[in-house]
Amino acid sequence: MNTIVPPQFTDIQQAWQRIRPHISTTPIVESQLLNQWLGHRILFKAECMQKIGAFKARGACNAIMRLVENDAKPSRIVANSSGNHAQAVAWAAAQFNIPATIYMPANVSQVKAQATASYGAEVVLCEDRFSVDEQVEMAAKTEGTLWIPPYNHIDVICGQGTATLEALHQLDEVPDAVFGPCGGGGLLSGTLIAAKGVNPAIQVVGVEPLNANDAAESIRSGSIQKLSKPADTIADGVRTPSIGALTFPQIKQLDDFFEVEEEAIIYWTQWLQHLLKLHMEPTCAMTMEGVSQWLKQQQQTKTVLVIVTGGNIDQPTMRQIWQHNCLDITPEKRFNTTPC
Amino acid sequence: MNTIVPPQFTDIQQAWQRIRPHISTTPIVESQLLNQWLGHRILFKAECMQKIGAFKARGACNAIMRLVENDAKPSRIVANSSGNHAQAVAWAAAQFNIPATIYMPANVSQVKAQATASYGAEVVLCEDRFSVDEQVEMAAKTEGTLWIPPYNHIDVICGQGTATLEALHQLDEVPDAVFGPCGGGGLLSGTLIAAKGVNPAIQVVGVEPLNANDAAESIRSGSIQKLSKPADTIADGVRTPSIGALTFPQIKQLDDFFEVEEEAIIYWTQWLQHLLKLHMEPTCAMTMEGVSQWLKQQQQTKTVLVIVTGGNIDQPTMRQIWQHNCLDITPEKRFNTTPC
Repeated sequence: MNTIVPPQFTDIQQAWQRIRPHISTTPIVESQLLNQWLGHRILFKAECMQKIGAFKARGACNAIMRLVENDAKPSRIVANSSGNHAQAVAWAAAQFNIPATIYMPANVSQVKAQATASYGAEVVLCEDRFSVDEQVEMAAKTEGTLWIPPYNHIDVICGQGTATLEALHQLDEVPDAVFGPCGGGGLLSGTLIAAKGVNPAIQVVGVEPLNANDAAESIRSGSIQKLSKPADTIADGVRTPSIGALTFPQIKQLDDFFEVEEEAIIYWTQWLQHLLKLHMEPTCAMTMEGVSQWLKQQQQTKTVLVIVTGGNIDQPTMRQIWQHNCLDITPEKRFNTTPC
Repeated sequence: MNTIVPPQFTDIQQAWQRIRPHISTTPIVESQLLNQWLGHRILFKAECMQKIGAFKARGACNAIMRLVENDAKPSRIVANSSGNHAQAVAWAAAQFNIPATIYMPANVSQVKAQATASYGAEVVLCEDRFSVDEQVEMAAKTEGTLWIPPYNHIDVICGQGTATLEALHQLDEVPDAVFGPCGGGGLLSGTLIAAKGVNPAIQVVGVEPLNANDAAESIRSGSIQKLSKPADTIADGVRTPSIGALTFPQIKQLDDFFEVEEEAIIYWTQWLQHLLKLHMEPTCAMTMEGVSQWLKQQQQTKTVLVIVTGGNIDQPTMRQIWQHNCLDITPEKRFNTTPC
């Protein structure tokens, strides 16, 4: 049995140097009103302004560049995804003139398939998720082909960790905690290694929908748990059925973890779009509910960094988010009346 | 009869120096995909990231600071508005510790009244728009009280013009044209003076909803025309019944002017939120339809600057914007199939 060496802080530092010329340095924004209302400082790393509209560009770029650097440039790249990872791989492959094929389930939203194709990738629509997995596995067997998985890959994890490393370099103060959403655990694994590498005192906290809480169940049981049915959550970036063998050891080390209700996800998506003027996905706005619950437990004023993971939202999701009015209850009121 | 001296370029330069320490330098963003699709370069000045979420902070700040500079600091500030101007005046007054009272119609959305109050202003809800105007006029008669109107005021016009002046300093190329939405004409008047002052070759173009086309009618007839009924448009920032005596002379000098359909306003609001990841109002997204129509008339590749005026959107408006799917027809397809 091979012992897998977990990603190290230096890997993330190297990844950042590697991908910096290709990715955007995204801004960190905050809302004075929100800070005032909650009595804490909440900083948002706007990865929705990243290439392809999501942090996923970092991981895909790092995975390809590592091979290019080692004179092992792949002749073809394949990936299976119906989300931001598809666009990230398509975009990153195009940066290095490598042909890419992305396998997607046929029921993927047109806008996502279109965006992936617009970066120059071949998009293959398969009957269902099972067929997607089968086809990508087959395609990956061809020599010279690189299969970039969405999270269970050391270069992907290290790439995702650069968002936090970059943010900690941008900030003029060390935050008390960094929060991120948990899907397959790639972002949070990279975030944990990056944050603790910069300063071990920084807490790293994960947030997951209660309706897709495989990671929370895995932490509780001590072994990787898989969702028994498709996740019924508006946070489509974290519908992943289970975390990975590479990410679980990191996820276990998180300082805290929150499972949040759908109502709270929609509430914060409305409010954060409104306050920050950013078109952000429910997946990242969800994280704010974890922040809110964590802050209620604190005795002192805290500074928190939230990774705003992406901004690719299809119309049915936007319609669902804005169906009912959440803007009539301010975060201040909600913060002071909702039980802990 | 007094001859009114129109605002000069130097007034806008001075306004910029004056307000810079108080306002945000907002970013200019663009979408590579949109540029590629349309075959032109379109730059967006993101004033939705400005203080209070709209360019209106500039005009209100300039009006107050001019008086403060001249040792004529008002003891109280009043304004009548149901939109971004209300928040702008409330915020600007608070910067100089001047008490402010904002008169709003009782049917104003709760989120807007709340936001105005959150900047520390007293909000007075009046029965209707008529009563609002009556009360602010009465309040303005008290000595030491400054009434800041939303557009028909030289300091307000000059303040609004600083958005374009700032953008032209930020850019590494001179745009061929600057586009802005037309409500009362304050923004466009300032934009015209600023752009022509920097380079007379820059075209300045206005855009208005067909359903609130008082400015277009005024240009056509040569005299200020008033809407005969309340404007039925989703672009709530430009529902103003007529342009002003100070703005009309500027509006007449615009290089071009477009009246656009409601369908196009919603189309571009969806697409620009999606492509730029900015939570922007229909009022500014509307401008993009004018850009699109103007670009179709051009023989050469153009660079265009669009003022993204604001990002304060209530829930009923967001629900209306995202009710139907516009993301299934790309701007490329629409640009190449819609008749000129």
